Amino acid sequence: MKYTIVINREYGSGGRLIGRKLASRLGIPFYDNDLIRLTAEKSGFSEEYVKEASEKKTTSLLYSLYMTSLPVSDQLFLAQSQVVRDLAAKESCVIVGGCADYVLKDIRGLVKVFIHAPINDRIQRVRDEYNETSGDYKNYVTRMDKRRITYYRYFTQYKWGRAHDYNITLDSTAGPDTCAEIIECYIKTFLKF
Amino acid sequence: MKYTIVINREYGSGGRLIGRKLASRLGIPFYDNDLIRLTAEKSGFSEEYVKEASEKKTTSLLYSLYMTSLPVSDQLFLAQSQVVRDLAAKESCVIVGGCADYVLKDIRGLVKVFIHAPINDRIQRVRDEYNETSGDYKNYVTRMDKRRITYYRYFTQYKWGRAHDYNITLDSTAGPDTCAEIIECYIKTFLKF
Repeated sequence: MKYTIVINREYGSGGRLIGRKLASRLGIPFYDNDLIRLTAEKSGFSEEYVKEASEKKTTSLLYSLYMTSLPVSDQLFLAQSQVVRDLAAKESCVIVGGCADYVLKDIRGLVKVFIHAPINDRIQRVRDEYNETSGDYKNYVTRMDKRRITYYRYFTQYKWGRAHDYNITLDSTAGPDTCAEIIECYIKTFLKF
Repeated sequence: MKYTIVINREYGSGGRLIGRKLASRLGIPFYDNDLIRLTAEKSGFSEEYVKEASEKKTTSLLYSLYMTSLPVSDQLFLAQSQVVRDLAAKESCVIVGGCADYVLKDIRGLVKVFIHAPINDRIQRVRDEYNETSGDYKNYVTRMDKRRITYYRYFTQYKWGRAHDYNITLDSTAGPDTCAEIIECYIKTFLKF
């Protein structure tokens, strides 16, 4: 049976690592940064440009009012949505980010996961594991959270982090291996395989 | 190590059954309706009265303005909170409802769980398993949800069903045994035992 696992995550929660471990346990492809590369290919923009725009909503209302064609960030979202749909249509996979829960909301075999963690754990992870340098990590993590939430709300109209919208949500403090194992266990029963 | 698992659940999601199964797997006591009995003993009111009041907030603002002592529902909430604290202090246990996540928010070894399910699954469960008779089950389930959320918000000031507030949230469609197994797996790693 074909299925798609989509993961939304708080910045610094380790959701990406959990997704990678989960995909490896299930023996299926994992997409995260590949979304950027594939969207760049589809849209004709550079990977750097897509990466920068991929978590930013349309810049201004004035811009939308005066432009006759779609703003670039909206065009990129549409290109990325097509990439997400194509990946899900091809084979079972794990997709992190890209508002894939929204884009794929009507397909069969969709499993939605949300990963979060207390702010101090996330600050520590970003400082120690993410190769990010910042004078004020707390401020940086909060800013990245806000950016992600705003982007998500703008394109999906969904609320961020509502338990009811997910099959399973986890505080990643239990560790990436445990989280991946738990999600795998849930999925196997939920999808009956 | 002593720990307390608190479970909040949507009406008809089977959260109580999951809690009971979890407690049985872990070999620790389970409290749900016992909260009513113990609160009745503590407060001097009848079990029926406590049950009726235990998911209702204070009736009216006028009442609060003109009464010099606390409204009965507030008194009952305080009595129930003391019951919850006493149970958690005594030994490891599973507590369903009673705003126990709020009452126990500062204790060590607290694991917070939220159980939900799609509305149609909940309607079916209430009709088939809960011994409830209603002409309009959808309306009944929605009303019970609303009552539970209002009570929870009134006494805790927390939002209902926010993923970040829980260690783990689950859509119970995967079945009570799988959910209990998954929560047990999470807890054992999270609490390192």
